[in-house]
Amino acid sequence: MAFGFEVKGRCSTNLARLGTLQTSHGSVQTPCFMPVGTQATVKTVGSEDLEKLGFELVLSNTYHLSLRPGADLIERLGGLHKFMSWPRALLTDSGGYQVMSLAHKRRVSDEGVRFQSHLDGSELFLTPERSIEIQGQLGVDVSMALDECPPYPCSRDEAAAAMARTHLWAPRNLAARREGQAVFGIVQGGVHEDLRRESAEAVTSLPFDGFAIGGVSVGEPTEMQYPVVDLAAPLLPDDKPRYLMGVGHPRDIVHAVAAGVDMFDCVLPTRMARHHCVYTLQGRVNAKNAQWAEHNGPWDTGSTFSATERYSAAYVRHLFQADEPLGARLATLHNLAFYALLMEDIRRAITEDTWPQLEAKYKDA
Amino acid sequence: MAFGFEVKGRCSTNLARLGTLQTSHGSVQTPCFMPVGTQATVKTVGSEDLEKLGFELVLSNTYHLSLRPGADLIERLGGLHKFMSWPRALLTDSGGYQVMSLAHKRRVSDEGVRFQSHLDGSELFLTPERSIEIQGQLGVDVSMALDECPPYPCSRDEAAAAMARTHLWAPRNLAARREGQAVFGIVQGGVHEDLRRESAEAVTSLPFDGFAIGGVSVGEPTEMQYPVVDLAAPLLPDDKPRYLMGVGHPRDIVHAVAAGVDMFDCVLPTRMARHHCVYTLQGRVNAKNAQWAEHNGPWDTGSTFSATERYSAAYVRHLFQADEPLGARLATLHNLAFYALLMEDIRRAITEDTWPQLEAKYKDA
Repeated sequence: MAFGFEVKGRCSTNLARLGTLQTSHGSVQTPCFMPVGTQATVKTVGSEDLEKLGFELVLSNTYHLSLRPGADLIERLGGLHKFMSWPRALLTDSGGYQVMSLAHKRRVSDEGVRFQSHLDGSELFLTPERSIEIQGQLGVDVSMALDECPPYPCSRDEAAAAMARTHLWAPRNLAARREGQAVFGIVQGGVHEDLRRESAEAVTSLPFDGFAIGGVSVGEPTEMQYPVVDLAAPLLPDDKPRYLMGVGHPRDIVHAVAAGVDMFDCVLPTRMARHHCVYTLQGRVNAKNAQWAEHNGPWDTGSTFSATERYSAAYVRHLFQADEPLGARLATLHNLAFYALLMEDIRRAITEDTWPQLEAKYKDA
Repeated sequence: MAFGFEVKGRCSTNLARLGTLQTSHGSVQTPCFMPVGTQATVKTVGSEDLEKLGFELVLSNTYHLSLRPGADLIERLGGLHKFMSWPRALLTDSGGYQVMSLAHKRRVSDEGVRFQSHLDGSELFLTPERSIEIQGQLGVDVSMALDECPPYPCSRDEAAAAMARTHLWAPRNLAARREGQAVFGIVQGGVHEDLRRESAEAVTSLPFDGFAIGGVSVGEPTEMQYPVVDLAAPLLPDDKPRYLMGVGHPRDIVHAVAAGVDMFDCVLPTRMARHHCVYTLQGRVNAKNAQWAEHNGPWDTGSTFSATERYSAAYVRHLFQADEPLGARLATLHNLAFYALLMEDIRRAITEDTWPQLEAKYKDA
């Protein structure tokens, strides 16, 4: 089935939309959260766990997979869905962000990015064409265009230069598509209103299948993130999915949905779990803390999660104290369930037009 | 329900028995294999996984649990079953073996073992009474008597001394029982036929609920293990369960069942999995080897396992190469499934009296 998107409902008090992404690996209810499966696995959990948690779209990383095990191998084995045994939809990033944050000896030119693998130092060259080709080999449902994401903080000139290169590359991404390959364009422009407007105009003039807000959640304080999202989201076409890359905390997701964003990914729930931090409606708590030593039930989340409700906080604290790998797994399942429930609550709040109650529920999360 | 054991069938060609253990946490079909959950968790897997794999009895370690999180805490929280959310039967060892292999500054006397915790150096004293008391606090279905297990190699005098102390302690274990606490006695005697006979006679004269063959699989070559098992198993009462501690390879289990053993535990399937070794009917293979790089199905085991059959050997190889924690988990599930299937095959071979075919199937495993 070809890629498609439909808006099915709206909030009366803000720009939140309820929608459905159509992909050849099933439909995805939006607003949605994508767990991050960097190396073709969401750390500590299997595809059967993600299915049970109800996720319909998972993100994986082009940079990591192209280095190991390699896109050629995954293509020969039947594509990324088959490789990781994930029957539902997949999205990959372009690899650009990881090249800038992980790779060595980067040299960016208008042609592309030359860099050395962080694994073995081998010299590689990533271009818009190559990124789209790799993502085509992986066979994912949504490919992301290669852009240049400037670091934070950066000067206005640097933000403008990265934006200009992003615009230069945008049509090259589209031209490299395989038949039927859905590609999202990315809007840059940093924290500068005029650049964001210029970038939205340039990128949305091209026939991408969806649009992402890039350059957010790259280290800036949250109070700078909200105005950018409030500005950038409504600049994107109403009839295409909008994806806020790398965000974020539950309350940040609630805010961005109200600004009109449909899709999210973030390493927080999975990374925090490995550092024994678990989400509750009162904020994140340290699962290793003595306060849980005799807590004979799950953490208080305002709900129960079938993923981990059979285990007590006392037990998971013991697992972390004893360096048992099951601790990180149970905390990961808990946090992913928290995010799955958050997105369910968000979609219900749009359907039932009860946004103030939703905002109140997650204000501390 | 009180603890009980019933022999339900026998092989016509050897001493193998089919039986049922009755416990207040359900019945256990024997011959059975107990996964090792040292710190109240079988490493990388949850209780729901063990239930799905069909295990009915899990072993945990008194030494580890008494140090962390402590038997008092587990008792206050409702016992070990509730703590690890395991509704089926549990067995704990006495802690003696771990004190001898892990603890510091051990001093064994007729009274008990004085030692320092390997975690924080605190001085502790383990006696038969204390071991049985701790296991009673944990609330397990089968407690093991504290014995003295000599290392291998050791002199005949050392084996005899350890045996004598084991006999001295045996009645003290029984005297320390709580109402209804089932306790197994342990036979020592090393590799010496006369000592094994003497030990079996002494220990089985006491009203234990089952009997274990100790001091096997402590470092001796396999060719020395088989004669000890062949000798020791038939010396144990026919109407009580027989447990061979710490064994072993699949072929060793097949051999011991044929000698009349009903119960097994071993860290091999779980420990090997964490070292990327997986069981197949052709023996263990290294899941990281290049031979699996493009193997687009599960490892060949003569069967499929629902636990891991959806994942290819190529994928699990990638997980290990990329240091992803899911690799150890999937290999652990695979190996535990291999052992679960082994025990199922063994019980079927007794029921159908087809032992030679079973032996042939597992001769290389």
